[in-house]
Amino acid sequence: MPERFDELQNKYLFDIQEYLKIFIHSIFTNPYTELRDIFYYHLGLDDPLQKQGKRIRPLLTLVSAAGAGVPENKALPAAAAIELIHNFSLIHDDIEDNGDVRRGKPAVWKKWGLAQGLNAGDAMFNAAFLALGGLRTNFSAEIQTEALNLISETCNLLTKGQYLDMRFEKEADVSMADYHQMILGKTSALIACSVEMGALLGKLDKDQRALYRKFGEKLGIAFQIYDDWLGIWGEEEKTGKSAIGDLVEKKRSFPILKGIEISKDFKDQFLNRGIDIKSAIKLRNMLEKMGIDKKVKDECAKWTREALIHLRNMECKENERKFLEMITNNLLIRVK
Amino acid sequence: MPERFDELQNKYLFDIQEYLKIFIHSIFTNPYTELRDIFYYHLGLDDPLQKQGKRIRPLLTLVSAAGAGVPENKALPAAAAIELIHNFSLIHDDIEDNGDVRRGKPAVWKKWGLAQGLNAGDAMFNAAFLALGGLRTNFSAEIQTEALNLISETCNLLTKGQYLDMRFEKEADVSMADYHQMILGKTSALIACSVEMGALLGKLDKDQRALYRKFGEKLGIAFQIYDDWLGIWGEEEKTGKSAIGDLVEKKRSFPILKGIEISKDFKDQFLNRGIDIKSAIKLRNMLEKMGIDKKVKDECAKWTREALIHLRNMECKENERKFLEMITNNLLIRVK
Repeated sequence: MPERFDELQNKYLFDIQEYLKIFIHSIFTNPYTELRDIFYYHLGLDDPLQKQGKRIRPLLTLVSAAGAGVPENKALPAAAAIELIHNFSLIHDDIEDNGDVRRGKPAVWKKWGLAQGLNAGDAMFNAAFLALGGLRTNFSAEIQTEALNLISETCNLLTKGQYLDMRFEKEADVSMADYHQMILGKTSALIACSVEMGALLGKLDKDQRALYRKFGEKLGIAFQIYDDWLGIWGEEEKTGKSAIGDLVEKKRSFPILKGIEISKDFKDQFLNRGIDIKSAIKLRNMLEKMGIDKKVKDECAKWTREALIHLRNMECKENERKFLEMITNNLLIRVK
Repeated sequence: MPERFDELQNKYLFDIQEYLKIFIHSIFTNPYTELRDIFYYHLGLDDPLQKQGKRIRPLLTLVSAAGAGVPENKALPAAAAIELIHNFSLIHDDIEDNGDVRRGKPAVWKKWGLAQGLNAGDAMFNAAFLALGGLRTNFSAEIQTEALNLISETCNLLTKGQYLDMRFEKEADVSMADYHQMILGKTSALIACSVEMGALLGKLDKDQRALYRKFGEKLGIAFQIYDDWLGIWGEEEKTGKSAIGDLVEKKRSFPILKGIEISKDFKDQFLNRGIDIKSAIKLRNMLEKMGIDKKVKDECAKWTREALIHLRNMECKENERKFLEMITNNLLIRVK
């Protein structure tokens, strides 16, 4: 990675952090400082920048906006809103999936209890809409209205994707088409929104907005497939997630659906019984013998290439295009 | 109640129902019809009008807007948004309070499970912001932006009020000032928002908006105190809530805090042990001996009178002012 991008990324991450801190302080004064503590904890705002989560979404918004001619500081309210949406969904996902650990720490609901955790998630969801209000300082009401529509349309896709994800965990026959529809909502929608927001704030025309969106959409699909790879072959110390976790939790992830598609034996063993760590390792070995770990990487690479094609056609400042290319390729490098 | 208001109220309730139905159908097509079912079930959209909940908030929005010169049909998106906010908060409250029954039916999370229930609540919260987008057809982007700010500021108060409510359940010393702050957020904020929204859409000036808001705020306080009365002396068949429930659940409601304030004996018995139905009835008798049932009614009447003073000063069409007065007084009649 060229050093100047490294520096720029660190500057952006720092600015997002500071913006979030000031914003959160402004909404939670006494006697609500515990809500502020929950926000800080979950968003990792007291942690060093490297441990705060990737902040891939707000980073994409800031770089896309800059590419479309909007100075970084003007796009910060939208970037913050998107990061808050992502993080509210994680707080609630952990409750829904019974997930104890998030980014190597106890999940919010484990630390503060289910009731306060759920409500803090609601507060964070709403905080995203509050943050959007900050756009008005530098943009017309028309632009703010469009940003609101983009965010609420996105969250509609997000909750529908989450609905499918939970439903599929209880269904035997989940097709690759089902999977695709689910991740379009669950993951891809918010990443697409992050990039499209840049074009929206930069007042690019409809076709350009669609191109920005498509770049984000393909990147989001690659991102989810990479995440699915991590859910079986990832290293716990690096990801903060338990390896083989998706097998134990019977997730309908990409490699698992591939395994079900290819091998009846895998399908029977996966669907017909409870899965402990020992049988999860056995199932993982079966996937490897079918070459599915390699297939997942290929699929991820395929979507990444598609994303890059859209990126090349985007009306975007050259420096920011290179920056977006770097972010995209970094994702792919990590799968190798 | 004059017959014409009765008719008008039924027309408004019918229009809110039809608007919600069309809106919900537009966002949940196949394969998301189960989410549509959850929305219909919780909002009672298949029930007769009388069993759908009071719809006091959207009714207040439509009447306030009409009073400020806005035709009912133009205000419907905002009224729908406010009803969706109220109902999302009930779906999540039931999870947080472990409440099994809502309006005489199993709560959403009991019927669809905690995970899908939680997510459906998120989808309903977001649907409110989606619905707000519908204002743009008849209003400027500036007005829509202001409506978004009002709703998100309100939900900020709402989640903070809910935070306090849950915290107070675990604290021994909750003062009347604490109680007041809690209900300002938990109940009064959304009712105040419902009324203020009318003034906002009618483009009334800042002072008038503040008056509309104050009317709603006082009405909201009266409303919550009435609800607290129901939580101890209400009839289960009429309210759909279990009578004496607030004692069993150790809520910090108005009558209970009054009891704690006045009698050390009540305080000790309430705070120092688990409360079953038998001891709840005993505690209720203690409250009655102290005349607290009467005190609660007086308090409710006091806030209602204050609300009516603001109503009189509001710049509002006379017919709608009378309608709002009727809605306010109906609340008080029900406490007698």
